[in-house]
Amino acid sequence: MNTNNIPPKAPLTVVKVGGAVVEDDAQLSQLLRDFSAIEGRKVLVHGGGRRATQTAARLGIESKMIDGRRITDRDMLEVVTMVYGGLVNKNIVARLQASGINAIGLTGADMNIIRSRKRPLKDGIDFGFVGDVEKADGKALMRLIETDVTPVVAPLTHDGQGCILNTNADTMASETAKALAAFYDVTLIYSFEKPGVMADPDDNDSLIPVITRESFAKLKADGTVSGGMLPKIENALAAVEAGVSRVIITKATAIDGRHGTLIV
Amino acid sequence: MNTNNIPPKAPLTVVKVGGAVVEDDAQLSQLLRDFSAIEGRKVLVHGGGRRATQTAARLGIESKMIDGRRITDRDMLEVVTMVYGGLVNKNIVARLQASGINAIGLTGADMNIIRSRKRPLKDGIDFGFVGDVEKADGKALMRLIETDVTPVVAPLTHDGQGCILNTNADTMASETAKALAAFYDVTLIYSFEKPGVMADPDDNDSLIPVITRESFAKLKADGTVSGGMLPKIENALAAVEAGVSRVIITKATAIDGRHGTLIV
Repeated sequence: MNTNNIPPKAPLTVVKVGGAVVEDDAQLSQLLRDFSAIEGRKVLVHGGGRRATQTAARLGIESKMIDGRRITDRDMLEVVTMVYGGLVNKNIVARLQASGINAIGLTGADMNIIRSRKRPLKDGIDFGFVGDVEKADGKALMRLIETDVTPVVAPLTHDGQGCILNTNADTMASETAKALAAFYDVTLIYSFEKPGVMADPDDNDSLIPVITRESFAKLKADGTVSGGMLPKIENALAAVEAGVSRVIITKATAIDGRHGTLIV
Repeated sequence: MNTNNIPPKAPLTVVKVGGAVVEDDAQLSQLLRDFSAIEGRKVLVHGGGRRATQTAARLGIESKMIDGRRITDRDMLEVVTMVYGGLVNKNIVARLQASGINAIGLTGADMNIIRSRKRPLKDGIDFGFVGDVEKADGKALMRLIETDVTPVVAPLTHDGQGCILNTNADTMASETAKALAAFYDVTLIYSFEKPGVMADPDDNDSLIPVITRESFAKLKADGTVSGGMLPKIENALAAVEAGVSRVIITKATAIDGRHGTLIV
């Protein structure tokens, strides 16, 4: 019931696509076609993936990983700024333009849309130039979007003191979605290699269609969901609790909002 | 005399800074301080310079130049997209944000602001993925600028068919200035290593304070101005004839609009 006569919010879709899709030309073409076909307001958040590691290797820079997370020293920061903010982002923008989407490429530094703080030492590990998001500016994004522009967001933020910081793309997507939830009815779509959250990782027909805070507790308790899926779902539930209308975890080839696991 | 009662246009400054300044940290810091101090609406257009050549060399890609112009093959296009659109552009944006300027980094592909055409063969030379500007969208830039945003433009455009194209930064600056002249009283400042156009290249006190179409003809005829300065001044005069209020050619450390050679 809308007692204040506030008009219903317009729908907006935030799609997060990972590095594996971005660096495969055929998969990226398909993804961009599907993204272009999504009606209404939308935002694309992309990862970077192994392309940065490859470019670093060619430049003679060693990639240091701890627990699957990249250690971003000064040399690696230059590489991810080049690869994510330049090569990957601008090629996606040019290709969306070619399909009639008025895209604009952004990092968190552009229009100060996502500010972060350099991650402090964790368990004695220095992650280097990695940013933990502090604040996303939904209003600045909304203003752009209302001029029929489609933001394409690279996984880079800034600290407000002149330094770019490497930032997790999943977090960029959820922070962007949460910040836009003040203005829109937001659907956040996480695309990855599986059809969604699976009850049995080895059975592609075991998709769990809906997860709520209550059902998640059970799935976690009985061990149906475990490992890397846990923080993904936790993150999705947190986004819903922060105002995002729904989160969908789905295959990169099925981002139309009618496939995958719905998290509400 | 303004017979139609159209209000006077607001002033706007477009500053072009070359690659040599951009790749020297101390010079870039000074330039960004001076740019931040310019009052009112403004746009920064930057070159890329030798940084792309260095990065290409480290990646094992040979830089091919003909008559001082880069031949942009597919590998080199990736490098300039990374270096100009990512590394250089995003670092400038982050540093301007740190000094309170709400900067946004753009290539011509972003919001389709500058569309170009892949250069056809010239005298049998294939320049590769180089763009000749076809159309700059002053209105899209104006809309951004009117939300207190300062565009930072990298020397890259797109062909509207999904391809990024390497583009001359001087041309990007003049096309941007011309497109914005429909909405603003535009001053275009070309910064470089000399105090301005010099009557005697070996005498730093020989600055020519003002050049017009008429005086340029004389300076050219008597040989006072020659070589690489000729196309620079020709380009500046063309910008003025296309609606830019004034062009200033000046040292990178003197971009306050009160130094250098004024072209009107």
